[in-house]
Amino acid sequence: MKLLFINGVNLNMTGEREKSVYGGQTLAEINEEIKKHFSDDECEFFQSNIEGEICGKIQSAKCDGIILNAGAYTHYSIAIRDAISSVKTPVVEVHMSNVHAREEFRHTSVLSAVCKGVILGFGKNSYILAGESFKL
Amino acid sequence: MKLLFINGVNLNMTGEREKSVYGGQTLAEINEEIKKHFSDDECEFFQSNIEGEICGKIQSAKCDGIILNAGAYTHYSIAIRDAISSVKTPVVEVHMSNVHAREEFRHTSVLSAVCKGVILGFGKNSYILAGESFKL
Amino acid sequence: MKLLFINGVNLNMTGEREKSVYGGQTLAEINEEIKKHFSDDECEFFQSNIEGEICGKIQSAKCDGIILNAGAYTHYSIAIRDAISSVKTPVVEVHMSNVHAREEFRHTSVLSAVCKGVILGFGKNSYILAGESFKL
Amino acid sequence: MKLLFINGVNLNMTGEREKSVYGGQTLAEINEEIKKHFSDDECEFFQSNIEGEICGKIQSAKCDGIILNAGAYTHYSIAIRDAISSVKTPVVEVHMSNVHAREEFRHTSVLSAVCKGVILGFGKNSYILAGESFKL
Amino acid sequence: MKLLFINGVNLNMTGEREKSVYGGQTLAEINEEIKKHFSDDECEFFQSNIEGEICGKIQSAKCDGIILNAGAYTHYSIAIRDAISSVKTPVVEVHMSNVHAREEFRHTSVLSAVCKGVILGFGKNSYILAGESFKL
Amino acid sequence: MKLLFINGVNLNMTGEREKSVYGGQTLAEINEEIKKHFSDDECEFFQSNIEGEICGKIQSAKCDGIILNAGAYTHYSIAIRDAISSVKTPVVEVHMSNVHAREEFRHTSVLSAVCKGVILGFGKNSYILAGESFKL
Amino acid sequence: MKLLFINGVNLNMTGEREKSVYGGQTLAEINEEIKKHFSDDECEFFQSNIEGEICGKIQSAKCDGIILNAGAYTHYSIAIRDAISSVKTPVVEVHMSNVHAREEFRHTSVLSAVCKGVILGFGKNSYILAGESFKL
Amino acid sequence: MKLLFINGVNLNMTGEREKSVYGGQTLAEINEEIKKHFSDDECEFFQSNIEGEICGKIQSAKCDGIILNAGAYTHYSIAIRDAISSVKTPVVEVHMSNVHAREEFRHTSVLSAVCKGVILGFGKNSYILAGESFKL
Amino acid sequence: MKLLFINGVNLNMTGEREKSVYGGQTLAEINEEIKKHFSDDECEFFQSNIEGEICGKIQSAKCDGIILNAGAYTHYSIAIRDAISSVKTPVVEVHMSNVHAREEFRHTSVLSAVCKGVILGFGKNSYILAGESFKL
Amino acid sequence: MKLLFINGVNLNMTGEREKSVYGGQTLAEINEEIKKHFSDDECEFFQSNIEGEICGKIQSAKCDGIILNAGAYTHYSIAIRDAISSVKTPVVEVHMSNVHAREEFRHTSVLSAVCKGVILGFGKNSYILAGESFKL
Amino acid sequence: MKLLFINGVNLNMTGEREKSVYGGQTLAEINEEIKKHFSDDECEFFQSNIEGEICGKIQSAKCDGIILNAGAYTHYSIAIRDAISSVKTPVVEVHMSNVHAREEFRHTSVLSAVCKGVILGFGKNSYILAGESFKL
Amino acid sequence: MKLLFINGVNLNMTGEREKSVYGGQTLAEINEEIKKHFSDDECEFFQSNIEGEICGKIQSAKCDGIILNAGAYTHYSIAIRDAISSVKTPVVEVHMSNVHAREEFRHTSVLSAVCKGVILGFGKNSYILAGESFKL
Repeated sequence: MKLLFINGVNLNMTGEREKSVYGGQTLAEINEEIKKHFSDDECEFFQSNIEGEICGKIQSAKCDGIILNAGAYTHYSIAIRDAISSVKTPVVEVHMSNVHAREEFRHTSVLSAVCKGVILGFGKNSYILAGESFKL
Repeated sequence: MKLLFINGVNLNMTGEREKSVYGGQTLAEINEEIKKHFSDDECEFFQSNIEGEICGKIQSAKCDGIILNAGAYTHYSIAIRDAISSVKTPVVEVHMSNVHAREEFRHTSVLSAVCKGVILGFGKNSYILAGESFKL
Repeated sequence: MKLLFINGVNLNMTGEREKSVYGGQTLAEINEEIKKHFSDDECEFFQSNIEGEICGKIQSAKCDGIILNAGAYTHYSIAIRDAISSVKTPVVEVHMSNVHAREEFRHTSVLSAVCKGVILGFGKNSYILAGESFKL
Repeated sequence: MKLLFINGVNLNMTGEREKSVYGGQTLAEINEEIKKHFSDDECEFFQSNIEGEICGKIQSAKCDGIILNAGAYTHYSIAIRDAISSVKTPVVEVHMSNVHAREEFRHTSVLSAVCKGVILGFGKNSYILAGESFKL
Repeated sequence: MKLLFINGVNLNMTGEREKSVYGGQTLAEINEEIKKHFSDDECEFFQSNIEGEICGKIQSAKCDGIILNAGAYTHYSIAIRDAISSVKTPVVEVHMSNVHAREEFRHTSVLSAVCKGVILGFGKNSYILAGESFKL
Repeated sequence: MKLLFINGVNLNMTGEREKSVYGGQTLAEINEEIKKHFSDDECEFFQSNIEGEICGKIQSAKCDGIILNAGAYTHYSIAIRDAISSVKTPVVEVHMSNVHAREEFRHTSVLSAVCKGVILGFGKNSYILAGESFKL
Repeated sequence: MKLLFINGVNLNMTGEREKSVYGGQTLAEINEEIKKHFSDDECEFFQSNIEGEICGKIQSAKCDGIILNAGAYTHYSIAIRDAISSVKTPVVEVHMSNVHAREEFRHTSVLSAVCKGVILGFGKNSYILAGESFKL
Repeated sequence: MKLLFINGVNLNMTGEREKSVYGGQTLAEINEEIKKHFSDDECEFFQSNIEGEICGKIQSAKCDGIILNAGAYTHYSIAIRDAISSVKTPVVEVHMSNVHAREEFRHTSVLSAVCKGVILGFGKNSYILAGESFKL
Repeated sequence: MKLLFINGVNLNMTGEREKSVYGGQTLAEINEEIKKHFSDDECEFFQSNIEGEICGKIQSAKCDGIILNAGAYTHYSIAIRDAISSVKTPVVEVHMSNVHAREEFRHTSVLSAVCKGVILGFGKNSYILAGESFKL
Repeated sequence: MKLLFINGVNLNMTGEREKSVYGGQTLAEINEEIKKHFSDDECEFFQSNIEGEICGKIQSAKCDGIILNAGAYTHYSIAIRDAISSVKTPVVEVHMSNVHAREEFRHTSVLSAVCKGVILGFGKNSYILAGESFKL
Repeated sequence: MKLLFINGVNLNMTGEREKSVYGGQTLAEINEEIKKHFSDDECEFFQSNIEGEICGKIQSAKCDGIILNAGAYTHYSIAIRDAISSVKTPVVEVHMSNVHAREEFRHTSVLSAVCKGVILGFGKNSYILAGESFKL
Repeated sequence: MKLLFINGVNLNMTGEREKSVYGGQTLAEINEEIKKHFSDDECEFFQSNIEGEICGKIQSAKCDGIILNAGAYTHYSIAIRDAISSVKTPVVEVHMSNVHAREEFRHTSVLSAVCKGVILGFGKNSYILAGESFKL
């Protein structure tokens, strides 16, 4: 099985920013753990701060499932929403933190309606549960 | 590990109601599958149509984790929200369907902010992923 | 023909509460008149103050039509709405008073969209007109 | 008994427009059926696309009851609302379709608060039930 | 001086409708009093229930000032607003009752912004004060 | 007849501020003209920038009618509204400019509902028409 | 090809009203130019200030395409919207000015959703482009 | 004097839940203190998590005054509101915490308008002050 | 114990204004009764119509508790709110009438969140219960 | 004449995505048709998924007119709006689909107010009509 | 150069109130530091809790620039806004704290639109930077 | 001291775009003046139209303070907001124009709450005052 993990804007800062919210591991370390968990599958990792590049990656993805943490773009990027709609590959939206327990503007996702499912609040395990969802 | 699966209002109708949304399995059949999946753990299942009884069940729960699909109460029961706040046991909110792809009023959950995490859109597998989240 | 008349919360107080709005007859007396009007049909009457019990009654109803006055639950019970959606039996929403001529919050019904029709403002005759609607 | 049935804007198109919503009978055919149903009563039928003419008809009505389907004017014509308030004759608001199951803007009626009652969702039978309401 | 008094929808019912609000004089009697008050001026009186006819009257008016009580159209007729904008003749908006002390929806006028001034709450004297405003 | 003209906050600046809106006459000059117009009546003039002093003046007024231009307080002073409600003397609200043709926040008056009437848009003549309204 | 150009309320004033917005040509002159442009096609021109007459014209239209500038009715006439829905003839909504660059209330059209397309901002050329759209 | 103290949903958890907000005493201990304070009066205590049971208790109450802490139902139970309206016994709404200093959704009470008064923010003393209010 | 009773704008009119709401006693008479009730304590009474003076009084208060009825300022004076926040002395907000049963704009208090508690609806006894709250 | 056609985010997917909405032609094929239509003019085509690159292209454009389909950015990119404002070249906003007949969030364009005109709903012909608009 | 520093309501409490927000220096001490910083200029300091007095001070100011911290009045005093508009002297709005990082209601300023500029978040240095702005 | 001046989208057009708002100097000329003003400090200048690049620059900044004019992104880029939160370097938000005196949508900044302070309205001097703020 081929899984694509896309991390959006500022997630390259994971492990440095607001450690109380995201924990102290860097994105590279988290990706390493994910790779280990899905050792029987092919995992690709992509990160970009640029909205349009994330759209492009989704458009050109060749895989069985996309696990997408769009970061702040979650809340307003209709562009990413349309990119998801434009492909057949199923996308699962994930967040490490429980966004509903944070600021009001983080309670709205413009992406959820066009994703297959949503998993949030389990730290790095949100990625792992999302990956597992494609294997059930 | 001891897991408590709580299903709220109208979920006793699963398998009869809107099959295109929920699939054709009954709640009993789904519970059976969950039990099989978590054969090494102790699973308890509870269903009620009555808001106050769901509050009571949460209050008196003795387990390692609660998996809660509150059905329609998700969208307005501050009572269930307060019951969740009143206990130390972590609660994971689940939905079988992708509620964000349905009617506007189903996009809001008054429960999410006090739950540990949210998993939605994976049919009966939403319960299984939520159960797994306690074991990672 | 088999008709089920469901009365929701506080309607057991009819004839005692706000007589200027609802008239001075008790619910029992009104039911008696309805029975007389539909003397050729089989009429069942059910009243409960508990939201979840009303859901249960709708779920298990075996009849040709349900006449439902949900009382205050009309304005916020998505649970009852979902119960109506979960059954094939057609439901007609009724109100004795003209709810649109009362407080603002009574102008919204979360049930109407999933009912077959709505009849309101005719006092006890609302029930009779609703019952008649199944016979036209 | 003398009954006046007023049909508002575009209802002259009934039977041609959106048949899935309104059925395939023309307004003339529906009026014929109503006349037959109320064969012991005097029935008058009036249709106009012009808001101000509907106001004028209500103002000058000489009858025991008005059955009013204002069509699209239902949702914004405070003029018709005021015309209803300006006469003593009771008015029952009717709609053939269940407007609450259609577009959002059709859920609001500026007329309901000044009508005696509302009946909607029963196709042409909405007119008949409304007429019957004056005879109970 | 030439003054044009335009009365909109339902104002032909003045003296019959809600006498507690408008007093018991008919529109004809009120017009008679106005004529007497402005005996040195030329007064024209126009009433219509039809929005488009009121627009037409404003467009073709040949006078020094228009005194306009648009009735219910005040609250939503952008058409009448645009008619006022399309002419050079100054228009004064009047209401007999204090619309701000009545229903919420009567607190908004879409006409005021394009009128020269507004006078409301003085019964039939609203017309007279508005007429006087052109002579100061 | 005894008339009290109350001018609220910043109206002492009339004739200096935004001359295109208010004209170039000072408040003193305007008051002088008003006095001349009502030469047969007793006129009192009061101006204050302080909300509570305007309330006090209204409370203690001994006259046949109050003409009130509350300035910016018009839009939010529930205190002045309550002061008007607390006395029997009728109050007419006036504005020199057409407030409905200015900023959005000037379209709302919290005073209108408790005043006898409203006159706006006629420059200094707004005061004179308001005074005249007590003599019709 | 047969084209019907409908102009709504106040558009008979074109060339007189707000020339900076609409230019100085009269509606008759504009129609003349349109006729010349579509010299190979059959063009019909209709103008009315009355909402219900515009509905009637749309209902009874016999042509290949309707070009509709509803004027102020664009913003609130659900009646005209329903008339458009009731016919099979495609309708293109046009405006001479860029309504989105004018007052807030002109930014909303209740007609657009049921029209084939929208063309706005090109002065009299809006009509010509709309006519051309039927020939591509 | 006979006083009825009704506690709603989750208040059976008092003393266990969010002690920083409610203090560490259990509901039983608080009731004991209240009883002692009103030793000359007859005190009844009732607690239920079920909305409909609270309605029933209010309907059937035989006492001089009801002291009601409805818990989370305060914010949305129009059912309890209607139950209060349906009886003559005066009801005083109480809250132990200052709900206005907590989450936004706790600032609205649908009950206050039909209660005699409201007392909130004094911990267990809120009950005592409410009881005292019936004796002044 | 030293108690300070502050009455805000227009409350000097108590006993004259809207007697059906506030009763017929003057503020002086009410203060007299309060003094008698708290005969063992030191009571200070302060009334001002001026928002800034109320802020000043709160800032300089030397007492064990402030009982504050801010009148209309309750609904918009962030200034008084900040004054309360700037002192350590606990403040109890009181209203004689049940403000939640009056106009919509009286349902919101900008003060409640920074007060210790709120007591409303008990007429002059609201002051007495608030005073008592400091002694429990 | 020199025309610049700018396509925004995800429009590179045209012909693959939601064919029922956009038709089955690819963007390259559509551009080819446009080129053929405007064979006497110089046409430049630009597509980017990146908001900032679209701004840059608009800033540096050297042409007689820009035809802009910004895709999803239409609904929130104030950046593109400001880019349009920063240049003298007229911009016509186009959409292939009738965005007003799609999801609510697609009804709002932040670009329209600063464009010369808007053309939408004519599929690939929207581009052609927009190009033609510069030649009338 | 002559600078006028105006401090509004409750700012006389600076140094006592919420020290974590405003620091521990009193207003007098802050003014002293400002004076020292602008030792070559003439500085005047004014503080009042009374809205109308602040208006008066602005109206009568004779200086090159006003530095205004209106405190809580910032959020609702249209009176102060109008006072600023009524004078030619430029006004710079300042706040010591970053009001956008505090309660929602502090995010809105009704003054900003009529001020020359805004400086906030730099503690006492906000005053100094604002003063400097007049010297650049 | 090391200062980083970041200019966002379209600010490369400064001096060409809307000169009445921004003045006629180019960004390069402004930067030159800033450099001269802070001749004792190390100044770095960065401009990008691409949201994600601005995020990246903020993330990797090595300096004592960032002066950020995000242009249009100010109003909706939660991505830039999160980038600011992810670093320890203090950021001051600046705008050359008084955004509160421009279009409604420019009154909201999603960045202010996470910045140290805000300075706006002083043209190019906004940058200089912001730089000075780090040196006080």
